[in-house]
Amino acid sequence: MTATQTALARATKRTGGTDHQASLIAQGADATGIVAAVTSVLSRHGGNIVALEQYSDNPEGGAFFQRTVFSLNGLQAAMPALRADLDEELVSRYGLTYTLRDMSVPKRMAIFASKSDHCLLDLLWRHRQGQLPVSIPMVISNHPDIAEEVRSFGIPFFHVPSTGADKSVAEAENLRLLKDNVDFVVLARYMQILSGDFIEKAGVPIINIHHSFLPAFIGAGPYAKAKERGVKLVGATAHYVTQDLDEGPIIEQDVVRVTHAHSAADLTRRGADVERAVLSRAVLWHAEDRVIRDGNHTIVFS
Amino acid sequence: MTATQTALARATKRTGGTDHQASLIAQGADATGIVAAVTSVLSRHGGNIVALEQYSDNPEGGAFFQRTVFSLNGLQAAMPALRADLDEELVSRYGLTYTLRDMSVPKRMAIFASKSDHCLLDLLWRHRQGQLPVSIPMVISNHPDIAEEVRSFGIPFFHVPSTGADKSVAEAENLRLLKDNVDFVVLARYMQILSGDFIEKAGVPIINIHHSFLPAFIGAGPYAKAKERGVKLVGATAHYVTQDLDEGPIIEQDVVRVTHAHSAADLTRRGADVERAVLSRAVLWHAEDRVIRDGNHTIVFS
Amino acid sequence: MTATQTALARATKRTGGTDHQASLIAQGADATGIVAAVTSVLSRHGGNIVALEQYSDNPEGGAFFQRTVFSLNGLQAAMPALRADLDEELVSRYGLTYTLRDMSVPKRMAIFASKSDHCLLDLLWRHRQGQLPVSIPMVISNHPDIAEEVRSFGIPFFHVPSTGADKSVAEAENLRLLKDNVDFVVLARYMQILSGDFIEKAGVPIINIHHSFLPAFIGAGPYAKAKERGVKLVGATAHYVTQDLDEGPIIEQDVVRVTHAHSAADLTRRGADVERAVLSRAVLWHAEDRVIRDGNHTIVFS
Amino acid sequence: MTATQTALARATKRTGGTDHQASLIAQGADATGIVAAVTSVLSRHGGNIVALEQYSDNPEGGAFFQRTVFSLNGLQAAMPALRADLDEELVSRYGLTYTLRDMSVPKRMAIFASKSDHCLLDLLWRHRQGQLPVSIPMVISNHPDIAEEVRSFGIPFFHVPSTGADKSVAEAENLRLLKDNVDFVVLARYMQILSGDFIEKAGVPIINIHHSFLPAFIGAGPYAKAKERGVKLVGATAHYVTQDLDEGPIIEQDVVRVTHAHSAADLTRRGADVERAVLSRAVLWHAEDRVIRDGNHTIVFS
Repeated sequence: MTATQTALARATKRTGGTDHQASLIAQGADATGIVAAVTSVLSRHGGNIVALEQYSDNPEGGAFFQRTVFSLNGLQAAMPALRADLDEELVSRYGLTYTLRDMSVPKRMAIFASKSDHCLLDLLWRHRQGQLPVSIPMVISNHPDIAEEVRSFGIPFFHVPSTGADKSVAEAENLRLLKDNVDFVVLARYMQILSGDFIEKAGVPIINIHHSFLPAFIGAGPYAKAKERGVKLVGATAHYVTQDLDEGPIIEQDVVRVTHAHSAADLTRRGADVERAVLSRAVLWHAEDRVIRDGNHTIVFS
Repeated sequence: MTATQTALARATKRTGGTDHQASLIAQGADATGIVAAVTSVLSRHGGNIVALEQYSDNPEGGAFFQRTVFSLNGLQAAMPALRADLDEELVSRYGLTYTLRDMSVPKRMAIFASKSDHCLLDLLWRHRQGQLPVSIPMVISNHPDIAEEVRSFGIPFFHVPSTGADKSVAEAENLRLLKDNVDFVVLARYMQILSGDFIEKAGVPIINIHHSFLPAFIGAGPYAKAKERGVKLVGATAHYVTQDLDEGPIIEQDVVRVTHAHSAADLTRRGADVERAVLSRAVLWHAEDRVIRDGNHTIVFS
Repeated sequence: MTATQTALARATKRTGGTDHQASLIAQGADATGIVAAVTSVLSRHGGNIVALEQYSDNPEGGAFFQRTVFSLNGLQAAMPALRADLDEELVSRYGLTYTLRDMSVPKRMAIFASKSDHCLLDLLWRHRQGQLPVSIPMVISNHPDIAEEVRSFGIPFFHVPSTGADKSVAEAENLRLLKDNVDFVVLARYMQILSGDFIEKAGVPIINIHHSFLPAFIGAGPYAKAKERGVKLVGATAHYVTQDLDEGPIIEQDVVRVTHAHSAADLTRRGADVERAVLSRAVLWHAEDRVIRDGNHTIVFS
Repeated sequence: MTATQTALARATKRTGGTDHQASLIAQGADATGIVAAVTSVLSRHGGNIVALEQYSDNPEGGAFFQRTVFSLNGLQAAMPALRADLDEELVSRYGLTYTLRDMSVPKRMAIFASKSDHCLLDLLWRHRQGQLPVSIPMVISNHPDIAEEVRSFGIPFFHVPSTGADKSVAEAENLRLLKDNVDFVVLARYMQILSGDFIEKAGVPIINIHHSFLPAFIGAGPYAKAKERGVKLVGATAHYVTQDLDEGPIIEQDVVRVTHAHSAADLTRRGADVERAVLSRAVLWHAEDRVIRDGNHTIVFS
């Protein structure tokens, strides 16, 4: 078994069953009877519910979100009929939108990195351990330093330099590599700001790890700013990338205690442990369809 | 509004709706279609699902647990017909057991305490704040010291001394006070061991707070034992009381960091903060039907 | 024993000795030999060092901070001679500043509060438990609601209304009450902004608890702002008050996890637990001379 | 610079100065004047105190512990005279024992591992980052699987099989490799129990990571036991190895939250993150002389 296969087997086992599992995410305006409608459709098709989480931000006319994982023998063959029923019940009747995904097909994750390797290594190691149900078709970096390390994990590495003011050449090259090859991108301490044009053309979710407890210390040099302000905790934030720098929907955050005796370099080191932990949780949850975007918020069924 | 009414209003608001909410707990052997069956029954009766959590310890033939909170206009009137349908669908068809509870009627909680008042005060204060959707018909203590404090919160206080080897007189008096008056009992650092006979006759769930991270340091003097062993964290455990001392199903646990410089008395003080936090969470979850017992384990939908 | 006496006895016991303890805080430019100079002076006078912490932000020409707690029989009588030696050794020879305080005399703490009582109650309860080595000569509030509660702890309560745009009358009354009666002030969720004039005239340290993880969510309504931003942790910050709102030196911070399912009201409730914990730690450390101000930073020997 | 040199440079920078730093650990019966005596000796020799921590478990006749880091130009040349003075002042006059160590010479750390690589990799990665001021002359494993990975970090790997009941051949081979080559040993999830004979003959401190919050779940299979008991937190403990399995002095502990929904395998994965964090802290503190053993306790000046 490859690392990806191991991860899928583990992810399947974790949510409890065979390799015929699918996730169904439904969202829209809340109404009486939605949960019954979803579960009845699945039941009619012989689906066994493995996990179900739902959330309504206001039962009296609010927004509704539901994640359902179910197992179904002959899932691939049953998909078209199932979709037809869901279109009928969820879309036509309740006006919801939904996504249905065969969980036996791993999401394809590209990682962008620069020189710092703590977040990158943690993802590669967890993937090798079978802890992340994704495939990793490529790691892209604007620095060549980490090439050998990445390849020792059996992962392709591409060096795309990004010097000078004009980032458009590098971005075009990155887009060419990503095109049709990946389902989401992770910025594992990638020290380049992506243009709005890139984000739009990439067309897949992009997860970034910011090295502060947002919204504190937006932008460059957060640990130096944290030292300057004299905070007693430093943190990290994983969020979806939008055109507004460090303003996208937050997926996960955590902090670690620091004292007056820690220098900015100490903060950087202590923070690195939080960064890799926070990013790996965010990636896992995204890979398992546990994160639903709702404007600038996230619903996380972790 | 009284504190209890405030708490109920807040609990209702928190789970999102009107004062016509009910909780439905179902458990038993897992099978395909249970969630659909539950939600369809509720839907047929016009119930709007406010929260739904389910867990199966093994989708291939394991045990199944579901908590559903729903709102329904005219809940009281609809209860008999709803029960009939649930008997039919859940009990007869799926062999499950269930409990259905009108959440507008608060659970009645008795608190047993001794001399230490930190856990007691925290519960009384949270109740007054409207954070705990319970009524508190009585506080019972084997020491008279805390009487005035309890009564200043408007709660009846009963002093039941428990001296000497024979605890049967005190236990009989306690049982007489509890009989038909309470739905569960909380031991808020009550320094008496309850007999198996008492536990059986009380006939309601009893929640205890033990001042260690169980199963470490079972029995008396856990902070002294923790100091002796040189641990770097001390903790607290809220659990249901069974006949086996400190061995009952765990509801919640937490810890706090300590160092070599802390004496056993310091551990006691730092631990007290954890005790009150852990106990208040366990009481809240029990009051909101978020805790399901499964042998010596708990399922906590927190 | 009164609560204050108990607290002093405990504080003394905690740092290990008799009731003849003193704290010595020294700070200034670092130089070789300072620690030896301080400890030699104390040794010459028969002082036994109970605790010693020091910190230099840069041994090559940085700033130096030292906290020493020592016990000395006949402390009161020995003070003048000790001061003379410290003036000679620390001030004249090393150019440091120092403060020497008899720890058997508790610091006098005034508490300002408004309607929210969670921080206030926690301080009063800890004081009654003997956990805070301070005396509390008064609680001042701009609301009368908490009067009875405060007085039930045996603490004087003063109601000083603060309505309308002109706060100068209220501030003048507050200053009159504080004058010469207190050593520091704690704002326990006091919902009034203090004028620079008041801060200056009060002439004692003022500790505030802000209900966010500063510098995130400065100003009013931090929990609503946190809900709006979609953060996954909310926090609290205890800091010394300066003329710049929420910008003073941070003493302590902490956070608690929240999810998408928590409303702004839930954040307020969960945050309240963090606020009282953070404020009580900051007050304890200030009372025990564990906090040294250094510009807009703090050195905390906790 | 090699990784070890980088680590030393960083460790030096962290505690603030040149590469002429030494640590002095003194312990024994408490008495008035010890701190002054130590600092005066250092001052006389021109030493500049960089860090000083002391602890007395009871100022009235208890045990005393002090860690002092100081910088001194020409440290190597000054050592003999310094030792003579310390022998005079600390040993003869106060009856203390002490160790004096040139911190520019890194401690030599051997790592023992088996199949699990998370703790091993974390140590190797931190060492490469320059976060651990040690040299790593060897990794020894009873399994060959991790050989390539270890060697990719430039660290020698030795495979010493340990099959069958008689471990004495393997232990003899391990002792031969260690002899005179290492200053301490780290068991990074090494799944062999060391004999008392081995521990004695090794003659250096041995640090183990146990995958539970000791003293809960001593011995084999702690995660399975934790699942069986239904705990809500799982933890890890780094401790010095003694002849009593899992009973040695604890250096560091930490925990992570788990729920009913986590299988024993999930506990193992979540616990692995805590294990590597706890072990790396314990190793760092040991490497920087921050841990003093006192019977079955540790004093940790972290």
